[in-house]
Parts: sequence; structure tokens; C-alpha cells
Amino acid sequence: MAKQTTIKEFEAVYEKLQETLLDHAKSYKLPRTELEWYKQNIRENPMGGKCNRGMSVPDSVSLLLGRPLTEDEYFKSATLGWMTELLQAFFLVSDDIMDGSLTRRGQPCWYLKPGVGMVAINDAFLLESAIYTLLKKYFRDHPAYVDLIELFHETTYQTELGQLCDLLTAPEDKVNLDNFSMEKYQFIVIYKTAYYSFYLPVALALHFLNLATPETLKQAENILIPLGEYFQIQDDFLDNFGLPEHIGKIGTDIKDNKCSWLVNQALELATPEQRQILEQNYGQKDDAKEATVKTLYDDMGLKKRFEDFEEKRAGELRAMIDQIDESTGLKKDIFEVFLSKIYKRSK
Amino acid sequence: MAKQTTIKEFEAVYEKLQETLLDHAKSYKLPRTELEWYKQNIRENPMGGKCNRGMSVPDSVSLLLGRPLTEDEYFKSATLGWMTELLQAFFLVSDDIMDGSLTRRGQPCWYLKPGVGMVAINDAFLLESAIYTLLKKYFRDHPAYVDLIELFHETTYQTELGQLCDLLTAPEDKVNLDNFSMEKYQFIVIYKTAYYSFYLPVALALHFLNLATPETLKQAENILIPLGEYFQIQDDFLDNFGLPEHIGKIGTDIKDNKCSWLVNQALELATPEQRQILEQNYGQKDDAKEATVKTLYDDMGLKKRFEDFEEKRAGELRAMIDQIDESTGLKKDIFEVFLSKIYKRSK
Repeated sequence: MAKQTTIKEFEAVYEKLQETLLDHAKSYKLPRTELEWYKQNIRENPMGGKCNRGMSVPDSVSLLLGRPLTEDEYFKSATLGWMTELLQAFFLVSDDIMDGSLTRRGQPCWYLKPGVGMVAINDAFLLESAIYTLLKKYFRDHPAYVDLIELFHETTYQTELGQLCDLLTAPEDKVNLDNFSMEKYQFIVIYKTAYYSFYLPVALALHFLNLATPETLKQAENILIPLGEYFQIQDDFLDNFGLPEHIGKIGTDIKDNKCSWLVNQALELATPEQRQILEQNYGQKDDAKEATVKTLYDDMGLKKRFEDFEEKRAGELRAMIDQIDESTGLKKDIFEVFLSKIYKRSK
Repeated sequence: MAKQTTIKEFEAVYEKLQETLLDHAKSYKLPRTELEWYKQNIRENPMGGKCNRGMSVPDSVSLLLGRPLTEDEYFKSATLGWMTELLQAFFLVSDDIMDGSLTRRGQPCWYLKPGVGMVAINDAFLLESAIYTLLKKYFRDHPAYVDLIELFHETTYQTELGQLCDLLTAPEDKVNLDNFSMEKYQFIVIYKTAYYSFYLPVALALHFLNLATPETLKQAENILIPLGEYFQIQDDFLDNFGLPEHIGKIGTDIKDNKCSWLVNQALELATPEQRQILEQNYGQKDDAKEATVKTLYDDMGLKKRFEDFEEKRAGELRAMIDQIDESTGLKKDIFEVFLSKIYKRSK
């Protein structure tokens, strides 16, 4: 039977990977001050999250094999998992600068730490480079080496396209609801989040086991992209309708002019009067205006609208999972695990 | 006989590559506004320079073959050349943000253009991604495909290490000459400049012709890294001792607290009194203080010191070039062309 990894086991792998990365930097005779800086960068930025993306690589590999992993299998697949976390760290460090964010995982953002500033941009680059250093070190002889590299390049590019669209659609300082649309929303969510968070870990697991074919990859993509979209829609829903004690923060999407599922739904449903309320109140750092938008969302029945969406999407996903041909090597379990973690989550 | 490329021929290749990159972005259904943005990014940032790095790829390939290139050879090798220009554009766009620079190639820096701002960080990422899109499109079936990818990864990483060292050694706002040393200087120059500007183009040419072996690559590196170091030292020399009408700008290294060859030489030679003059006058936006440092450089005979260095280094390089075993496929010509462009240049 498959066995689920724990955050403790998973983090233990990263201890070893940090050593590998430091040894690699040392082999270039990087001076001491810079080595110390690099060490902090690769320690602090990829760590501290829930590691859901990263841990889903060894978990998926174990589900595909239908048994617990050997030590070597675990180390290698968790290493691939850490590459997804490094990719995410690369994006988070730089997104926080681009968005002017203040905190990340309950701490000041990396670029706001004393003495860091814009050096954070180069630190983000080094997090990205670490992916390829690890790939070369541990997968140079794997039959899927080229596919793994190309998968990371492709996913990086997709996420950058999503981020570009997000930045141009919802600049924090210039509210223009004409920019928003469900089409833009879908593009941003799919490219900025779904590919790297959902498709990438499963595609890595398939490549790792040499089960990746155009068919298995396509099937995974067909399920995981709508699943990732559903995940982000739910995130947007919880930002407004979730309980702060569950989601661990107070939602700020309305004040931050976010191109959220809720505002896009509201824009689709709005009467001219309601549209005007949105125009006058969305995207401003003002408690009363935020409350007006929240009331509008309630009046428009967006809670019910989300719940209907959730049932419909979950049903469609279940049907797709049901139709998976397991003789290709794919396992329904992988997708069921993802779906069960997401369906009706409150945090 | 070999034939040298012209900037016009070289830029014509990029017209085609821009189309390839745009078609690729379109295949993801990137919305119109974002596509237009991307188009400007890939047009404006890699263009407008002298393209010395990029053009040296087809030139080196032609010298290695000892004949003019066919149309296809020219297109492919110039495409590799444009990848070095894309890599440089990725670094320049982001370095300008990190350094707080104001102009680049006589225009406002990309991040300072109206409406760009921190979106420039993501634009830099997309310039980097373009390298791998082009590699996959044009070199997927080349026997050296993996080596080409790894070469770009390695060079990117090296340049990032150099940039890290530069940023931590010479922050513009905090002058501390104790940070400087010839060792740090050498690390910065070799990693931040020499690898991507000198080694990369020749290594690409060797891979392109399947002439890259550990030996030919090592030999090229052994010559091109000291050559690149010499180039940068000369750049630092010209910043102070060159004529503005030759170098096309007024040098600002002293005011900008740059970890320049000159200040490092001065620090090595300085009496305690001279060191104090440096401490009191270096790295400040003050014409009189700058003039004091310039006088000190003159008094210390740094012009002569550079000229002696130049003769010594050029002699060493000529001796190394002379010893090249051409039966490996390497050609002395390549290195002689580089050296002759640099030796005693005044701009």
C-alpha cells in the first residue's frame, strides 16, 4: 500500500539538498560573506510553507507504485518535490517585490528583511538555478532527464505568463474593472497557479517512474488543470466567506483590487446599479467600502453560486477520474487524493 | 575564408526569432494586452546594443570552419548568438533595478519606462525563458542539445554568483573600502562578466559544430577567462583614463563606489595617508571628492600600472594562443580576433 509522507520526513531531505547546493557554490570558490548569504537564501525562502506541492511528488509516486517507497525512491522523488518548492520560492520572493507585499508565511517578506532589498531579485534567480543544479546532480542519468528539464522550463514559462496577466489586469494602484473578465481570470488562475501547483508534481512523478507518455500526461493535465482552477476559485471564495480562524488570515482581496472569482462573478451578474456600486467601492483601502462590496456579494447570492459551482466541478472531476484507464500506469487514487483534500475544505 | 557578420545581418535573424517567440506565446492564448507587452519586452530589451557577444558566435563558427557559412548555418549560429543577447538582456533589465540605474544604452532603463515599474522583474524572467524556447524549437534534435541547455544553466548560475558578490561588496549607499580586495574583484569580474561575455559564445560555437570536448572547452576557458578579465580591467581603466568622446560616456565609477580595478590597485599601493584620502573621498556624489581621487590615481601612476598589466597579459595570452593544438578542431584565429579587438582599445 502507498504511504503518505510527513512534513518532517520531507524536510529532512532538504537538509541534505542544502548541503549539496552549498558544496556546489563552494566549488566556485564563492567568498565567505556571499556563501553565508546564499545559505540563508536557500534555507529561509523554500522552507516554512505547508509543502503540499512538494510532498505530493513522493505521495504520487507511492500511489503509482501501489507500495511504500524504498529509501532511494523516497529521496529522489522528494528531491523532485523540493524542486517544485524551489520554483515556488523563486516566484514568491519575486512576486512579493512586484506586488509590494509586506508579509509572507507570517514573517516580513525576504526583500524587506534588514539589508536585503533589491538583492532579493538575484536571490530569486539563484533559487531558480538551484533546480537545475539538483536536476543535474541527481538525475543526469535518468532516462527522463531532458523531459524533466523541459517540464521545469515549460512550467516556469507558463507561470510567468500567468503572472504577467495578473500584473497587467489588476495593478494595485489603478482600479479599472473593465480589465476584469472571467476569461482573464481563468487565464491567470490556470497559468499562474494550476500548472505549477497541480500538474507539475504529478507530471514529475510520471517522468520519475518512466510512465510519462503523451497520453498519461494529457490525461493528468485534463484533470489537474480544472482541479487547480477549482482550488483557486475556492481560495478566492474563502478569502471573503471563510472564517479567519480557519484560513489563518483576514482576507484582503476586495481592498487589494484582486481579480478574484467573486468580483468576476459579481461583474457578470450585476445590474447597472450594482456595477456602479462595485466601481465606487472595489479596490480601495477603506473598511466601509469593503463592507459595501461584501454586502453586495451577499445580496447577489455568491455563496450559493460558489457552492453550485463546487458541486458541478467536483462531479465533473469525479466522472473524469472514473474514466481513467489504469492500464496506462495512471492511478485513479492520485487524483482522488487531490480532490478529497480540496472538496469542501474550509481552510 | 571566414566572413564576419554585420550588425544588420545579425539583427535580421532576430526579426525571425521574435516571430517565433510571439507565435509561441500566442499558442498559449495569451490575451491581447499581454501579448503586446511581451512583444515590446522582447523587442526593446535585447536590441540596441553592439551585439559583440552575440555576433561572436557565428563569427567563431565561421573561423572554426575556415569558410563562410551557409544560410542555415548562419541562421542557427546567429540564433545561438541571440540567446547570449537574451541572457544579457535578462541580466541588464534586472541589474538596472538592483543598482537603481537610470539609463541604459542612452534610454531610460526598462523599469523606469512609463507604466513598467516592477513588472520589469517578470519581464526579465520572460527574457530568460525565451532562451529555452528557442533552444527547444531550433536545437531539440542537435546532438549537443543537453550540453547547450546545461551550458546556459551553468553560465546563468555563474553570472548570478558574480552579481551576488558585486552587490554585497559594493552597495552604492554604504562605502566600506575594507570590503574591497583584488581577490573579490577577480571573482566578480570573472563570474559576472567573463563567462557569459567571452567563454559562452565560443563554447556555443564549439557545441554547434560538435567540436566540444572536455579538452577543447578547457583550452577555450583557459584563454577566454583571463581575456575577459583583461577586458573588464580595461573597461575600468577607460572609465577614468579614457576620453569621453571615445568611450561615449563620462565615467562615474568613483562616485558610484564601484569595486573597480583602479581602486583595488590604489588600495594595494596606498600609504596610510593615501588610504585615508581614499576613505574620505571615494564613493560620494561630489565633484571635488571625485577630483581628489582622480589626482591620487595619477600620483600613484595607475596609468602606467595598467599599461604594464596590459602588455604582460597580452603577452601571456599570445603565448597561450600560440600553443593551441589545432588538430583538436580549435583555431588560433578565434582567440586572436578577440585579442586584437581588445588590445589597446580606446573605446
